[in-house]
Amino acid sequence: MIKVGIIGSTGYAGEELVRLLVNHEQANIKFCYSKKFASKKYHEVYKNFFNIIDKECVEDDLLKLSKEVDVIFTATPQGYLAGILNDEILSNCKIIDLSADFRLKDVAVYEKWYKIEHKTPQYLNEAVYGLCEINREKIKTTRLLANPGCYTTCSILTLAPLLKNGIVDENSIIVDAKSGVSGAGRNEKIDKLFCEVNESVKAYSIGVHRHTPEIEEQLSYLLGKNVVINFIPHLIPMNRGILASAYANLKGKYNYQDIKNIYQEFYKGEKFVRLLDENVYPETRCVRASNYIDINFKIDERTNRILAFGAIDNLVKGAAGQAIQNMNLMFNLPEDMGLNAVPTIL
Amino acid sequence: MIKVGIIGSTGYAGEELVRLLVNHEQANIKFCYSKKFASKKYHEVYKNFFNIIDKECVEDDLLKLSKEVDVIFTATPQGYLAGILNDEILSNCKIIDLSADFRLKDVAVYEKWYKIEHKTPQYLNEAVYGLCEINREKIKTTRLLANPGCYTTCSILTLAPLLKNGIVDENSIIVDAKSGVSGAGRNEKIDKLFCEVNESVKAYSIGVHRHTPEIEEQLSYLLGKNVVINFIPHLIPMNRGILASAYANLKGKYNYQDIKNIYQEFYKGEKFVRLLDENVYPETRCVRASNYIDINFKIDERTNRILAFGAIDNLVKGAAGQAIQNMNLMFNLPEDMGLNAVPTIL
Amino acid sequence: MIKVGIIGSTGYAGEELVRLLVNHEQANIKFCYSKKFASKKYHEVYKNFFNIIDKECVEDDLLKLSKEVDVIFTATPQGYLAGILNDEILSNCKIIDLSADFRLKDVAVYEKWYKIEHKTPQYLNEAVYGLCEINREKIKTTRLLANPGCYTTCSILTLAPLLKNGIVDENSIIVDAKSGVSGAGRNEKIDKLFCEVNESVKAYSIGVHRHTPEIEEQLSYLLGKNVVINFIPHLIPMNRGILASAYANLKGKYNYQDIKNIYQEFYKGEKFVRLLDENVYPETRCVRASNYIDINFKIDERTNRILAFGAIDNLVKGAAGQAIQNMNLMFNLPEDMGLNAVPTIL
Amino acid sequence: MIKVGIIGSTGYAGEELVRLLVNHEQANIKFCYSKKFASKKYHEVYKNFFNIIDKECVEDDLLKLSKEVDVIFTATPQGYLAGILNDEILSNCKIIDLSADFRLKDVAVYEKWYKIEHKTPQYLNEAVYGLCEINREKIKTTRLLANPGCYTTCSILTLAPLLKNGIVDENSIIVDAKSGVSGAGRNEKIDKLFCEVNESVKAYSIGVHRHTPEIEEQLSYLLGKNVVINFIPHLIPMNRGILASAYANLKGKYNYQDIKNIYQEFYKGEKFVRLLDENVYPETRCVRASNYIDINFKIDERTNRILAFGAIDNLVKGAAGQAIQNMNLMFNLPEDMGLNAVPTIL
Repeated sequence: MIKVGIIGSTGYAGEELVRLLVNHEQANIKFCYSKKFASKKYHEVYKNFFNIIDKECVEDDLLKLSKEVDVIFTATPQGYLAGILNDEILSNCKIIDLSADFRLKDVAVYEKWYKIEHKTPQYLNEAVYGLCEINREKIKTTRLLANPGCYTTCSILTLAPLLKNGIVDENSIIVDAKSGVSGAGRNEKIDKLFCEVNESVKAYSIGVHRHTPEIEEQLSYLLGKNVVINFIPHLIPMNRGILASAYANLKGKYNYQDIKNIYQEFYKGEKFVRLLDENVYPETRCVRASNYIDINFKIDERTNRILAFGAIDNLVKGAAGQAIQNMNLMFNLPEDMGLNAVPTIL
Repeated sequence: MIKVGIIGSTGYAGEELVRLLVNHEQANIKFCYSKKFASKKYHEVYKNFFNIIDKECVEDDLLKLSKEVDVIFTATPQGYLAGILNDEILSNCKIIDLSADFRLKDVAVYEKWYKIEHKTPQYLNEAVYGLCEINREKIKTTRLLANPGCYTTCSILTLAPLLKNGIVDENSIIVDAKSGVSGAGRNEKIDKLFCEVNESVKAYSIGVHRHTPEIEEQLSYLLGKNVVINFIPHLIPMNRGILASAYANLKGKYNYQDIKNIYQEFYKGEKFVRLLDENVYPETRCVRASNYIDINFKIDERTNRILAFGAIDNLVKGAAGQAIQNMNLMFNLPEDMGLNAVPTIL
Repeated sequence: MIKVGIIGSTGYAGEELVRLLVNHEQANIKFCYSKKFASKKYHEVYKNFFNIIDKECVEDDLLKLSKEVDVIFTATPQGYLAGILNDEILSNCKIIDLSADFRLKDVAVYEKWYKIEHKTPQYLNEAVYGLCEINREKIKTTRLLANPGCYTTCSILTLAPLLKNGIVDENSIIVDAKSGVSGAGRNEKIDKLFCEVNESVKAYSIGVHRHTPEIEEQLSYLLGKNVVINFIPHLIPMNRGILASAYANLKGKYNYQDIKNIYQEFYKGEKFVRLLDENVYPETRCVRASNYIDINFKIDERTNRILAFGAIDNLVKGAAGQAIQNMNLMFNLPEDMGLNAVPTIL
Repeated sequence: MIKVGIIGSTGYAGEELVRLLVNHEQANIKFCYSKKFASKKYHEVYKNFFNIIDKECVEDDLLKLSKEVDVIFTATPQGYLAGILNDEILSNCKIIDLSADFRLKDVAVYEKWYKIEHKTPQYLNEAVYGLCEINREKIKTTRLLANPGCYTTCSILTLAPLLKNGIVDENSIIVDAKSGVSGAGRNEKIDKLFCEVNESVKAYSIGVHRHTPEIEEQLSYLLGKNVVINFIPHLIPMNRGILASAYANLKGKYNYQDIKNIYQEFYKGEKFVRLLDENVYPETRCVRASNYIDINFKIDERTNRILAFGAIDNLVKGAAGQAIQNMNLMFNLPEDMGLNAVPTIL
């Protein structure tokens, strides 16, 4: 059994980690760390866990905790892990970081978009970007895993085969993304109150959303040269789910099957990537509470543009599920262990 | 492995049966019966099953199908099973009926509330009412299981210990229930369209809801004499969940712990019944997509009335989950097999 | 033109006051008072007012402000007005208080349920409870109007004719109420975040909700003797609307038309009370954004109980609309001025 | 008083026409035509009108009805009006058609996208496209008004100043639109049931949505040459509202104020077009139940692309409100008569 600790366990991604790990046959949750709710029962914070988890939330020294477990998940605000990480911790246990601290290789880009100083850039090089379908082999051996963002997971996987095969104009890429509200986290802000979000839709963080450089960096690796995109997130009145609608100009003439072949080749054997049948398009409900991403696309012949769509559950494939998929890889377990739930379409 | 067939597999309860049985380690789905979608792929009807189930929906003769499986779930309209059941079918396989056909022992009551003739009343006596927490021993040996209704499961379990112990005035019971929209099924009616249900609440079937006599019958067994109640269902703009708010006059003076003891005794060892801590009350989200019922109550000293609350997921504990719990009992499997999902609070 | 000031203008009830008063042909908004957003443009706080109101929010001395207007609406937390009211203010302008400070005649009851000291009980006697359909004549001449609570307006109007005519057992009354989330106000609490409320239903403030004594006091006046009830509020995932489901034992045998006559007589000429046709029941969407209350009932012959239902928009008839209806009466204007919007059913 | 008839009065756009016309001081509704609900009381179909409208729905000969009124609104399926229109009708009364029958000047384009034969193309030339902000003068004198579609109104108004001034590459335009569910109308389809739409988001009619050629035609007029775009609609779990997110490459270098000036000049004096302050972006709730369109944009310097956003209420500015705005113009009334409601942000 893998001994697991969760820091930031009372945020929404933290809750999903606990929910999924409780039924993971090789994981044993040793502690649920929460600064805000320290010494409260975990099931008092999230009442779905009544009679399931009896632990109290703890707050403690990270170094000390690192000695008690095999792996720590940090579902924490930006800057927390980078501010505290050191060699001793990393020699004690593996770290799967759900924050953005170690996702971007270029510290200047991090500091520009996140507007905080990075305290431990020396670990950036070592950190592995944990998008399993892209980086599987590196993930298996790392001790510092940077778990991708929710929007980025959805956007990159939707576009990756196109970039890898160089069939779209890299200057034409626009990602219009739609997210449920849980992506914004569990903090008391007026603009996340029920009555402010319900029955409305809006774009936000227009031109400045922090997931932009993360998508660009990964797409650039795939293409082999620099990619700059527009990424425009929208808030949707629902709890879970992200739909990425990605638009790009095709460099040549292709029919549906040409490009479908490219996707199928790229995602061959990938259990969690579902390439839908022609004319069937992703809906977030079809992946809800599961680790799948559903993908499909349409070629618009009038404009020779590809319209590609990807849907994930932002809390699962976009956060906790992918983190566990990474853990499975890092501990040499079957990659889908604990992640086999059928989406709850209702 | 138990060979399983599902009739009415493309309704909402049918979908949940498939969803839960796919991951049940001792069940093997042999057929998904759907009159409406016969010969369509199941995953075309419910796209969450893409790459998970490749079966086509079938429509066939029940007798023939009964020879191919160990158990058939009928998630069908009232009157279907009663209109077709016979000895040969029952000798071929067990039946777990999610309709109301065999829930009420008195055929006259059935015909009065459902306004259809009962074609096979000869099986009413044999049928076992499948509320596991009440009828566990009988369930284990039956071949015809009447799976309780969603409202009834929630209402009866919320009130059962009070009736069993005779501490409330049986003439004072009112159940004000609130249900998500999936309880109404998947049929094309104007009053179930999104824009007709969203952002509104209403009572419906006032005084005539068919779950009324079912609740009354079971409460009467518990009390040992006839119980007549008011049951008032309300429609809530959400997909899943039932909250039953039950009110009754106490016959004597009790404090919270007195009655808590009664509940604890009654539900001793029941995994799926969670008696919440004092002053913590059920919320439907805390049981979502799980087989739990959460229960708690308050004694109002000003009126000497008990205000008791129960919450379930209408599609799981109120339908498919309980049906599988019954199947587990009927096939001598661990009662919670396939039913261990943690509620998805988000 | 009536010069109007609004204190607490940036809460939800405050916003509705502004929304309705902007189009009121005899009202002229002089100031929007907001402690939290002082010196911000009102349309920065509520962006629906862009190009409609150009005022900044102010914070100032109440006495000074009282000299500038004919009437002040206080949509403020409990205790604010009671803590500051004096003769000079009341001689300068009329006050319509949307808080509970002057609703209950008995200061001990106020202090018990609200758990704050009442600083100016000397005005309790003078204050008029502003339920127009009950207290119309007194309202016309008062200078201190206590605008009823949202739940109370709905509950009292649903039950009033029954109490007035003494046809129900006053010891049997239960009100199970369902409210949208705007009733809880605009404050940053975790339990009002979108993801905590959406897709769930729960009871809250069980046995201790502060609207209980207010309903009881008014029902007691109607009956002519003391009434104690159970009032159980529930939170519904929608923005607006309250449905009160009220249950009581009938003292004699009545048919539907007997009691319909009682309601019709009681509410004769009341424009905003709509007594629906037999078998048509209130839905909150049918009164949304309007000042109507829709009412109907069913007699359950099996239990000889009446099941009565009332629906309002909590922000209009339950707060701002009723406050303006009161203003119209206090300034001798047509009672429905500015309140003629047809409900937005969609 | 203008005598008004409404055909298709029981669809969602029809309901909004009735709702707004009831309080229009110069309109008098003579008949509510409904094939489906003929001889039912209108308030039985839409219960918000109880005690407000006592009319029965009628079904009758259009020619006969045309003699009884000054204007007829046709909120009918595509093909209805084109199949029945003749000179005599048009000589009897004006027609404001909310269907697409007379929006596109080229009958071949109509027949290609709508896949129905146009029976009366001889009226296409006479018909005026009723986007008031673009075609005001022509609207004033026409007797056949083609009321724009909901998506088209929002998309065109969001982009118009850019095209008119030729500052974007017309081959680069992508409109990613998000709509509430009422836009899909009131028909009993499984995919519009509450549980199928709630808590999910999806794109639909990808590459084939019928509003595409309508947007293209109007943008082409503005630019003075042919425009081909991608238009991708998405379904959002809310009743009302459309947000159009429009993306285009700028032909030159501009700062925010440069382009703001262009918008301000283009929409000078337009009451219903609100150009928001810099860094404030449209949200559909801010225009709900009103006739406003809120617009703003951002220039992304990294890609030299403009990201423009427009929000309307699809049932008001996108249908019934704009139709009444057109009626006002056609009958020489103040353009905003009956359209002054403040958006209901809650």
